[in-house]
Amino acid sequence: MDITSLYSDACGQLKASEIGTLLAQTRAGGFISFAAGVPAPELFPAKDIAEAARQVFISQGSQVLQYGDPKGNEALRLKLSERMEKVYGIAAPAENILLTSGSMQCLDLCARLFLQSGDKVLVEAPTFIDAMNTLTFTGAAVEGVPGDEDGIDLTALAAKLEADKTIKMIYVIPDFQNPTGTCWSAERRQAFVELVSQYEVVVLEDNPYGEISYTDSRHFALKSLDQKGQILFLGSLSKTFSPGIRIGWLTGAAEVIESLVLVKEKCDIHSSIPDQAIAAAYMDLFSYEEHIRSMCSVYQKRRDKMAEKLRELLTDFSFLPPEGGFFLWLQLPEKLDCMTFFEAGLATKVAFVPGTPFYPERNNNQYVRLNFTGISEELIGEGVLRMAKAYDNLLR
Amino acid sequence: MDITSLYSDACGQLKASEIGTLLAQTRAGGFISFAAGVPAPELFPAKDIAEAARQVFISQGSQVLQYGDPKGNEALRLKLSERMEKVYGIAAPAENILLTSGSMQCLDLCARLFLQSGDKVLVEAPTFIDAMNTLTFTGAAVEGVPGDEDGIDLTALAAKLEADKTIKMIYVIPDFQNPTGTCWSAERRQAFVELVSQYEVVVLEDNPYGEISYTDSRHFALKSLDQKGQILFLGSLSKTFSPGIRIGWLTGAAEVIESLVLVKEKCDIHSSIPDQAIAAAYMDLFSYEEHIRSMCSVYQKRRDKMAEKLRELLTDFSFLPPEGGFFLWLQLPEKLDCMTFFEAGLATKVAFVPGTPFYPERNNNQYVRLNFTGISEELIGEGVLRMAKAYDNLLR
Repeated sequence: MDITSLYSDACGQLKASEIGTLLAQTRAGGFISFAAGVPAPELFPAKDIAEAARQVFISQGSQVLQYGDPKGNEALRLKLSERMEKVYGIAAPAENILLTSGSMQCLDLCARLFLQSGDKVLVEAPTFIDAMNTLTFTGAAVEGVPGDEDGIDLTALAAKLEADKTIKMIYVIPDFQNPTGTCWSAERRQAFVELVSQYEVVVLEDNPYGEISYTDSRHFALKSLDQKGQILFLGSLSKTFSPGIRIGWLTGAAEVIESLVLVKEKCDIHSSIPDQAIAAAYMDLFSYEEHIRSMCSVYQKRRDKMAEKLRELLTDFSFLPPEGGFFLWLQLPEKLDCMTFFEAGLATKVAFVPGTPFYPERNNNQYVRLNFTGISEELIGEGVLRMAKAYDNLLR
Repeated sequence: MDITSLYSDACGQLKASEIGTLLAQTRAGGFISFAAGVPAPELFPAKDIAEAARQVFISQGSQVLQYGDPKGNEALRLKLSERMEKVYGIAAPAENILLTSGSMQCLDLCARLFLQSGDKVLVEAPTFIDAMNTLTFTGAAVEGVPGDEDGIDLTALAAKLEADKTIKMIYVIPDFQNPTGTCWSAERRQAFVELVSQYEVVVLEDNPYGEISYTDSRHFALKSLDQKGQILFLGSLSKTFSPGIRIGWLTGAAEVIESLVLVKEKCDIHSSIPDQAIAAAYMDLFSYEEHIRSMCSVYQKRRDKMAEKLRELLTDFSFLPPEGGFFLWLQLPEKLDCMTFFEAGLATKVAFVPGTPFYPERNNNQYVRLNFTGISEELIGEGVLRMAKAYDNLLR
């Protein structure tokens, strides 16, 4: 019996991620990798989390070990409500927040609530690969909308919205986007919300990187401008706190949150209550803001180091230094294809992610994505040196 | 804008569970409830879990806080592999185990891998309501197969398998079933596996209650007899350890587990790594088996108390005392409908779950489900007294 012959149509083509397969060969010893999208493990507030956990298990033991509210731990929802107000200008009461197992689950829940075969989702081109994978797992299609350094291109977006009535959802990452690092300007945000308010579409505003900022300027969230109740804001503690503790959240119109709770109950009843209580206790006992600030100061130096070395050693390449987030989006010299460069990097033992799969139409081979947060300044210097050698080898 | 008009077809009819809505009115003060399906919170090994958590966060802090293996913490998978071998006779190497966020997520992942509109799932009639809700969320239909005190009726099952080629999956709970408490006999297990091996169907063997046993006799799992690789075994720590810490797991054919990992990555990347590490550390530091044994001795007394009071006070009712699990399935006198009895219970302030929704065809109104694990012996006595009063009121 071939049990795989019983798979659903959606899973008939299930295969491991192309990027994962490509990168498997770079996990051997000796490689310097800019490929991951992970926080620096040495910067986790591990000792403080241990103390928060100790207090939670001692003072709330049998409570957090029992089944809980499907929306998740109330203390944490209250903290996140306050934080969204302060950082992003979003007025979201705790009862309108659904805690999830990371923001990937936010995407999956929204996909299941809204999407099916025949629907279309507009995304920035390029955008987060795994978001496209999860949104299209419903049978929906994704289509790219170009952008510039201020955000998504509204002329292109308007033309698509006007022409195509199968568009049901728009997925964007306005703050320090993955992979480009772009942070939308205030004007673009305002104009975007005005434009989409003219259409019957739902907008997912994914914001895992908003607090990983290397400037003092803050941007209000798209959600804070939403008069119509069509925007869902997706948050995450994975980049600022811990991705192993899987905490994401969603806020939006009350009736949509209630529906998402029903979907989540079918998926996994609710997320880990101890993890949520530990995050809430951590925020009570310690300064989450201070932790983020000190983490960002390390990341900023790593970004500076990467930018400096790239400017010094890869003078044919270009980039805009990101003002936040995890990634630097490096444009290759005109005749160099990202896969060719990736393969040249294999020979000099440096890894990064070729840019093509970030484009829904796979129509751009001119970029690679570099992560600078998960790796020391010293290794960043050495890694860029290896990239320069790889480029040099190609020029010979 | 009515954002709910954008919902997918599957979510157009999304509504809160009928049982949840029914029971909402019984959460007021003064009610004694046999309705929940929860472990006794006073029996959680909260102190020992606190110590395990302390050790995990101190010794593995930055490791468990980082992204991890999508299959989940390896130490826990090794423990579960050993335990499945010992308790159920299942030979499942750790690499063939996928850790999930509770066993509800096992059901959801299997539903997404195998099911779609047009498929049919056979389930025991009656069966776990939430399992039907999750399996049918894919668009698949469920159909009931009757059973007796030894398990599912194989003549009825064979007739359905022979007649209906849309049957893709069979979902069963052979150990101390929800709601009936039935534990399949050894002969029935053997014959079931032989029968299904003749068909191209996948079997989900859901086993959240197998270790909650009030006898010394053990039963081998269906999975332990599976020569064909068509059975997936679903485990859970929710009843034996903690449901707040959401840990379920799946084991089955290697290629199916690999596919389920890919589905899980789209859903939430992986589950909480600290929770999994805490469970593993707990099993290292303390005796999980001893904890289960002492918990079961309390539950057994509660079951005995409930059985004794029912026999004493509700002599027109009948039941088989369950030899394990959380529930007693009470058969009502011939002319009494479970909704009528439920409503009579509201008046005397006692709650239980009417049996009809446990039947996929909703064609049996002769039972109610009583939980005896989450409530003290004293309250069990008082609750059954109130049931007797409710019955008495109906007889007048």
